[in-house]
Amino acid sequence: MSLERSIAILSPGLLGGSLAKTIQQRMPGMELRIWARREEAVQEVKRDLPAAIASTSIAETIRGASLAVLCMPIQHMPGIAQQIAACELAEDLIVTDVGSVKGSVVAALEPIFAGTKAAFIGSHPMAGSQRTGLAHASGDLFHRAACLLTPTASTHRPHLERLRAFWIKLGCRVREMTPQEHDRTVARISHLPHTMAVLTTLAALGKDASVLDSSAGGFRDTTRVAGGDPEMWAGILLQNRTEVIAALQDASGAMRELLEMLQTMDEEALRRFLTQAKALRDLLPAV
Amino acid sequence: MSLERSIAILSPGLLGGSLAKTIQQRMPGMELRIWARREEAVQEVKRDLPAAIASTSIAETIRGASLAVLCMPIQHMPGIAQQIAACELAEDLIVTDVGSVKGSVVAALEPIFAGTKAAFIGSHPMAGSQRTGLAHASGDLFHRAACLLTPTASTHRPHLERLRAFWIKLGCRVREMTPQEHDRTVARISHLPHTMAVLTTLAALGKDASVLDSSAGGFRDTTRVAGGDPEMWAGILLQNRTEVIAALQDASGAMRELLEMLQTMDEEALRRFLTQAKALRDLLPAV
Repeated sequence: MSLERSIAILSPGLLGGSLAKTIQQRMPGMELRIWARREEAVQEVKRDLPAAIASTSIAETIRGASLAVLCMPIQHMPGIAQQIAACELAEDLIVTDVGSVKGSVVAALEPIFAGTKAAFIGSHPMAGSQRTGLAHASGDLFHRAACLLTPTASTHRPHLERLRAFWIKLGCRVREMTPQEHDRTVARISHLPHTMAVLTTLAALGKDASVLDSSAGGFRDTTRVAGGDPEMWAGILLQNRTEVIAALQDASGAMRELLEMLQTMDEEALRRFLTQAKALRDLLPAV
Repeated sequence: MSLERSIAILSPGLLGGSLAKTIQQRMPGMELRIWARREEAVQEVKRDLPAAIASTSIAETIRGASLAVLCMPIQHMPGIAQQIAACELAEDLIVTDVGSVKGSVVAALEPIFAGTKAAFIGSHPMAGSQRTGLAHASGDLFHRAACLLTPTASTHRPHLERLRAFWIKLGCRVREMTPQEHDRTVARISHLPHTMAVLTTLAALGKDASVLDSSAGGFRDTTRVAGGDPEMWAGILLQNRTEVIAALQDASGAMRELLEMLQTMDEEALRRFLTQAKALRDLLPAV
């Protein structure tokens, strides 16, 4: 039995759409209310998820919901949160989000709901794709994904437990950490790899893209995420810039070491360097 | 009908083993002769590829072969090539290799065979894996892979055509370029992505590997090749160091630009930067 009564999803993009599909698969019969900014997106939801209640009205979407999940780009979250806070809300409403940055998001959203009946707790399911939009949404996206919850000193434990139960129901492995720990962690494990894929793509193809004709799986995998949405990623990188800069500076230091080894032909040092990276990479279990 | 009579493969690792399996699938009945340095490796070949003639003797392996493919790490190729050149060779023998660097390999190997009945032409099938060894060899490895052939002014056209026919038979898309063009191309499309995966792994996990617990597909894909063999890759990066250094310096320049955008919070420039990378990455057709 679910602890939720009715779930509102705001913005049916890749994550919101995948969330909706996963809820339909794993919480059969759950009321699903979906808000989209544009009327065409509402029509797409009606075609794709006919059992859901779809609307361009935030007030209508949020009405009676016990859980609301914000799935728009993080820079738009405070504005939408303020509109939600001005609506009539259920007594037991928990508002959460799926944003990739938590320090700035939690700092902005928690106070917005502090004076309302609702409570805000940040979530970050580590799932996504370089693809965007409802058309690429999948009910498998969250299966076995880590979901990072970021409670604060103001978070009520029973709310946190309900939110945890929700993500576990969707198939996630739930972890708790502070918003600051979250931002340090994802800067290393997600935002750094994203920027490195971008730099690899630019340095590989920037002078002459015809080398693509000789590419293989290494280039394909190493650069896959560079195909992600620039608008969304500009927002993420800027909102987490302190931690991203620190991670990039470590990568930059490692790059200087590597260049030095190549310039001085220090084979021993180079082999140690590659061996250290392999040992770390081998910690990740094979799929 | 094949233009080859008998094919010798020297070193049954991931590439040599995959080559043997592909030949058995696509050139049924072809005589296959496999050399391994260690007796245990010969026994492994006899178990895994019972139809092949396996030996620790180079002279025995090369006897009567019309094509010999060197599949050991590039730093060992000149020594093995000298041993082959000292053997009794068939009149029509073509020696090739599968090494990831061509300038230094062709410069070392072409003269070794210049005084013999055999001819050397460099090959580089763009296929591989972070895994190593015969146990991971696969008859599908070369399917639709680009194979870069690097003839020189001394190459006889009929030899080149025979070699081209061989790789096409194995399922490759064959491209021709000079050894220097090859090294410039693979520095960008293969060696740079490899080093960037190494740097990403070190900067992501070097300070605290526990962040791995929060990782998702982005980290997995971006760093996959960092699990490759350090010994082999140290050889590749050093032998192609001029081109690898040039590619890394471009990546380093792009990293300085990115750091500047983050530090000055230049959202417009950051969005343009990410958009440019996405446009380049989107040139690669989806699988």
